[in-house]
Amino acid sequence: MIYLDNAATEKPDKKCITAAEKYLFEEYFNPSGLYKSGYNLHLELKEARRNILTRIADENNFSLVFTSGGTEADNQAVFCGGRRGNVVTTSGEHSAIFSAVNELKQRGIEIRFANLNSDGSVNEEHLLSLVDEKTSLVSVIHVNNETGAINDIFSIAQKVKEKNKYTLFHSDGVQAFGKIAFKLNNNIDLYTINAHKIGAIKGCGGLIKKKNLQIKPYLYGGGQEQGLRSGTENVFAVKCFEFAALDRYSKLEENYKKVSELNKTMRKLLDSELFTVLSSENASPYILSIAAKGVRGETILHEADDNGLIIGTGSACSSNQKKRYSRVVLSCGVDEITADGVLRISFSPENTLEEVKAAADILNKIVANRKRIMA
Amino acid sequence: MIYLDNAATEKPDKKCITAAEKYLFEEYFNPSGLYKSGYNLHLELKEARRNILTRIADENNFSLVFTSGGTEADNQAVFCGGRRGNVVTTSGEHSAIFSAVNELKQRGIEIRFANLNSDGSVNEEHLLSLVDEKTSLVSVIHVNNETGAINDIFSIAQKVKEKNKYTLFHSDGVQAFGKIAFKLNNNIDLYTINAHKIGAIKGCGGLIKKKNLQIKPYLYGGGQEQGLRSGTENVFAVKCFEFAALDRYSKLEENYKKVSELNKTMRKLLDSELFTVLSSENASPYILSIAAKGVRGETILHEADDNGLIIGTGSACSSNQKKRYSRVVLSCGVDEITADGVLRISFSPENTLEEVKAAADILNKIVANRKRIMA
Repeated sequence: MIYLDNAATEKPDKKCITAAEKYLFEEYFNPSGLYKSGYNLHLELKEARRNILTRIADENNFSLVFTSGGTEADNQAVFCGGRRGNVVTTSGEHSAIFSAVNELKQRGIEIRFANLNSDGSVNEEHLLSLVDEKTSLVSVIHVNNETGAINDIFSIAQKVKEKNKYTLFHSDGVQAFGKIAFKLNNNIDLYTINAHKIGAIKGCGGLIKKKNLQIKPYLYGGGQEQGLRSGTENVFAVKCFEFAALDRYSKLEENYKKVSELNKTMRKLLDSELFTVLSSENASPYILSIAAKGVRGETILHEADDNGLIIGTGSACSSNQKKRYSRVVLSCGVDEITADGVLRISFSPENTLEEVKAAADILNKIVANRKRIMA
Repeated sequence: MIYLDNAATEKPDKKCITAAEKYLFEEYFNPSGLYKSGYNLHLELKEARRNILTRIADENNFSLVFTSGGTEADNQAVFCGGRRGNVVTTSGEHSAIFSAVNELKQRGIEIRFANLNSDGSVNEEHLLSLVDEKTSLVSVIHVNNETGAINDIFSIAQKVKEKNKYTLFHSDGVQAFGKIAFKLNNNIDLYTINAHKIGAIKGCGGLIKKKNLQIKPYLYGGGQEQGLRSGTENVFAVKCFEFAALDRYSKLEENYKKVSELNKTMRKLLDSELFTVLSSENASPYILSIAAKGVRGETILHEADDNGLIIGTGSACSSNQKKRYSRVVLSCGVDEITADGVLRISFSPENTLEEVKAAADILNKIVANRKRIMA
């Protein structure tokens, strides 16, 4: 079986899970317990927090709140950051932002969506034109989860701050963390990261925030996570996250090169008579959006599945909404016929060139065959 | 090491975790994926949902939404159930309810707290007197997490409904599920359960709701959990939860008897000259609240810890608030001197009589020795 739906979730990295296993069976205590074994876990969490945070941010300026995943972190950013006036975001956001801002709209906050460029990146000029003195929050996805387009959030955030220095800037970095090289700077107030997209386990993520930024909790209770996220700390998941983050950042460049090679090979081997590549050359190599010409993506997905190849159509998180076309892909200006044939191929550093070659072969054969039948 | 802080978190049951391990390393897919392996996990979640739910509720009348834990489920009940008028709750709630209703108060909802009886159960008469035509939500903890007092939520819910049939009734059942025998009836609208208090892993819980009850999501995004809780489903944690629930309910009575025996033994062996038992005889046997006379609970906890015995003082979830006295214990009418000496001993079916005997011995010696020093 060839697994190329890594942007939906990655196969957990056995060495990270095994290293964290002692927090499941031996060090299972409640980190809020006052006894030594509890306090030790409190220290272990602190170490994990530091090790994850400092991969991409200066710990003097930023702190990290562990959450149950990217969705919770995105929701906390939206609901705690967008409390008045208007919120500016993009048409290329993950559902966790898109659905949250739509709920915010119900609560009387005006939501403004910036248009996308054809590759799925945000049209910066349009976005900036939407920011005004009443904008409480701007949220821009770092790496688009469907096309892999990279938004230059640092440049955008700076220009947003120049227009309104009181506006908070948030970015969903779920598809960026552990995959592309960057460092957060002071124009970024809030940043979402996630564990299960980098080989750790589901049920864990984080919201990075500027240290001096006061935000409200989203989950209220025992006051864990410096009062910003209550609930018994999930030490096992957090330690898996820490080990995966350390591992990924220790070979960020090497992985990037490897995945770029996989991506390029896939682009080269896919028959250009049969497929259009939607992702730009500048996109994150981890995500490749393609469209079969005149064949439904879902049909190809199922036939590929029968042939031992797992890929996605758009975002897995959109499949529950049972919409035929991807909201994000349509926002790129793609016509409905092309949108109908969209597939998302997403890589992990664990994938091999052989897998990619076999996958391209399977996809070419499926579409060629379908076209022959339809002709 | 003797571990008697099971109400804070239980040691994960290795056989349940091992049985669920394949969802970590083999069946790691995204359950929203459209391919077979994703869909199969969707079915596995359905099975888990059914197996957990039907331990305590009729699946024709109730449904189960998986959350990241008890705190999230409690927050969803409070914020989505208490949307207008007033909310009635008790002075004996877990922080996940107490802090959430205090936030609700900031948002303009009136919060009314019912007094406790001396054992930590709610004063039903007082609670009912607080319910009126404007009460949108009543939340009453099922088993008090500090004293083990069992509230007769079924009788209370019925009387609440007789006063106002539109009032939603929620109960936090985190210390009840898998521990005491009960079945939900139609007067209960919302019920919180949790995985890591019954030998499954942290980061998973659930909100049971009446099937025909419409509530809003608390986490917005990809529309997982029938649109009521977005975020990639945590299949491994859910399956651990399922296996632990099946296991605990297959021997509910046997475990209850065993733990009752442990509880009785502890009560008998603790020197009554040195300790006052705060929990009533009718409390859940899983939790035993005691108070050392004239010695600080925290001092005893640390000395016990040095002697290989792990116990709690009140709730672990309160330790972050750094208050000297337990809010719940004071609400039972306990004086500050007694409240200062409170310890929570909490059992799991895995504990043995030998452990309890050794623990009682350690506690008696510590307090006797302290008293000798102080005399």
